[in-house]
Amino acid sequence: MKIAIIYHSETGNTEKVAKLVAKGAEKVEGVNTKCMTIDDVDTGFVEEAKVVFFGTPTYAGTYSWQMKKWLDTCKLKLAGKVGCVFATENYLGGGADNAELALLSQLLVKGMFVYSVGGSKGQPYTHFGAVCIKDGTAEQKERVELFAERVADSVNKLFK
Amino acid sequence: MKIAIIYHSETGNTEKVAKLVAKGAEKVEGVNTKCMTIDDVDTGFVEEAKVVFFGTPTYAGTYSWQMKKWLDTCKLKLAGKVGCVFATENYLGGGADNAELALLSQLLVKGMFVYSVGGSKGQPYTHFGAVCIKDGTAEQKERVELFAERVADSVNKLFK
Amino acid sequence: MKIAIIYHSETGNTEKVAKLVAKGAEKVEGVNTKCMTIDDVDTGFVEEAKVVFFGTPTYAGTYSWQMKKWLDTCKLKLAGKVGCVFATENYLGGGADNAELALLSQLLVKGMFVYSVGGSKGQPYTHFGAVCIKDGTAEQKERVELFAERVADSVNKLFK
Amino acid sequence: MKIAIIYHSETGNTEKVAKLVAKGAEKVEGVNTKCMTIDDVDTGFVEEAKVVFFGTPTYAGTYSWQMKKWLDTCKLKLAGKVGCVFATENYLGGGADNAELALLSQLLVKGMFVYSVGGSKGQPYTHFGAVCIKDGTAEQKERVELFAERVADSVNKLFK
Repeated sequence: MKIAIIYHSETGNTEKVAKLVAKGAEKVEGVNTKCMTIDDVDTGFVEEAKVVFFGTPTYAGTYSWQMKKWLDTCKLKLAGKVGCVFATENYLGGGADNAELALLSQLLVKGMFVYSVGGSKGQPYTHFGAVCIKDGTAEQKERVELFAERVADSVNKLFK
Repeated sequence: MKIAIIYHSETGNTEKVAKLVAKGAEKVEGVNTKCMTIDDVDTGFVEEAKVVFFGTPTYAGTYSWQMKKWLDTCKLKLAGKVGCVFATENYLGGGADNAELALLSQLLVKGMFVYSVGGSKGQPYTHFGAVCIKDGTAEQKERVELFAERVADSVNKLFK
Repeated sequence: MKIAIIYHSETGNTEKVAKLVAKGAEKVEGVNTKCMTIDDVDTGFVEEAKVVFFGTPTYAGTYSWQMKKWLDTCKLKLAGKVGCVFATENYLGGGADNAELALLSQLLVKGMFVYSVGGSKGQPYTHFGAVCIKDGTAEQKERVELFAERVADSVNKLFK
Repeated sequence: MKIAIIYHSETGNTEKVAKLVAKGAEKVEGVNTKCMTIDDVDTGFVEEAKVVFFGTPTYAGTYSWQMKKWLDTCKLKLAGKVGCVFATENYLGGGADNAELALLSQLLVKGMFVYSVGGSKGQPYTHFGAVCIKDGTAEQKERVELFAERVADSVNKLFK
């Protein structure tokens, strides 16, 4: 099962979290991941992927305009795939939850099945997606990996 | 495939839309639906369902507190199912889109795969879920049925 | 009292609504308005304004990336002013309410006092801001004017 | 200038933060605050207040159903006042930002001027309102007080 990870990163923090998502997802047998920036998307890989993670920094309490522009103008076929998100922010209350929900709303419009695990697999919960302060504390990093692993496991079991 | 439709309705408008959702979903072969209010949920049916639709009136620009209370306190196992929404409002700009997104965010926390078809199957689009002004114009009613049929068709094809 | 109206419009619909906002606001004695696109902002006028309206089309259920980019990169001093919004969408359920709330969240980050009148002045309500389907029906246009007039009136009475 | 602080608290965390809001706001000369739970609101005080802060725990990534029920059913005259929010959550990514925005959207419908200071007074920013993990670290507590003080100061200067 292919899992694509598409992100926008300026400082490198979101890119580091993208790599943790890949690491976590690959713990599930048979999963093959690829990280890519919004400026260099491997269209073939994404179109074969069952799951696409989208990662963004939080600017002004929501996702970056670059990510918004990319989503509005990209021609990728995402319908029927599972869409998940992660976000970085500089401090608590910076708006990462809101960035994630706003991003998820865009994925719904693309026809994706949006998923976050939520509280369904016990602690730690990921309400809307993984969140890190900058590139994450040790605990936050662990949550990112676990989130990605849980997503891969669920999709593996539930989707054809 | 079982599809449950759970709703809160005070004036009866949202209940009427719930019935259209059932009618639309049953156009897909093998689909069996059941409509139920939040006060009288058939737990067994819901737990066997692959898809659960949630319907709400729009109060003060978002979903009703009754729906919020029910979601916060219900013990239904919803994880791994597909979650979809519909809403009624009294006039354009009443907040039905916001009600739907807020409701979808709660379904994510339950561990559901949230889905709206979006723009992925051509016109008419359903960005976040079906919307009706009161109990809907003829065109709005048709959209509700088509939305439900499209959801049932997608889930039938993609989920195990 | 100066009131600035800043908008992004591609088809011309949002521009038409901007003019209705101006017309409505000018019904309050002493109000002086100016409409401007995000590409041609009169900085001096905006900085002297007490109220700034922001108008956007709805793309993919939220405001346009052009508006987001402009907000993220503009250097206008907006803190302490009143911020209001209006949006156009192509059909009911297109996401205009969500576009408005997302836009208002950005204005909060700029330090604005965000205002929508809501249900506080009786029918017709404007929960988050004025909404038009394309350039608006006669009734929707009337609501836009009334919304702007009510905003101007409130700010006139409450702010120094 | 009277400032009311209305909150819902089950564990006592949000109540502790409410007291910090009061402490911060009272640093501005002439400010008189009163904290009250949603079950015991001093209607007279609120109706004389220029600013009302609303505090909520974060449940399932948004504000509590008790707060939603209270807002939907309360008859308080809030129009024309300034509305601000604060929220507690159990861990990063718990949804406090989303709880705050959802709560602010309800205050808009009440006809309030919604305000969060945002990034307009330099670091530390409060994008949508004050956020604490449980009852807050020392740094988070300091931010709460500063947030409330800044709000009181702005309203004092700008409103009649």
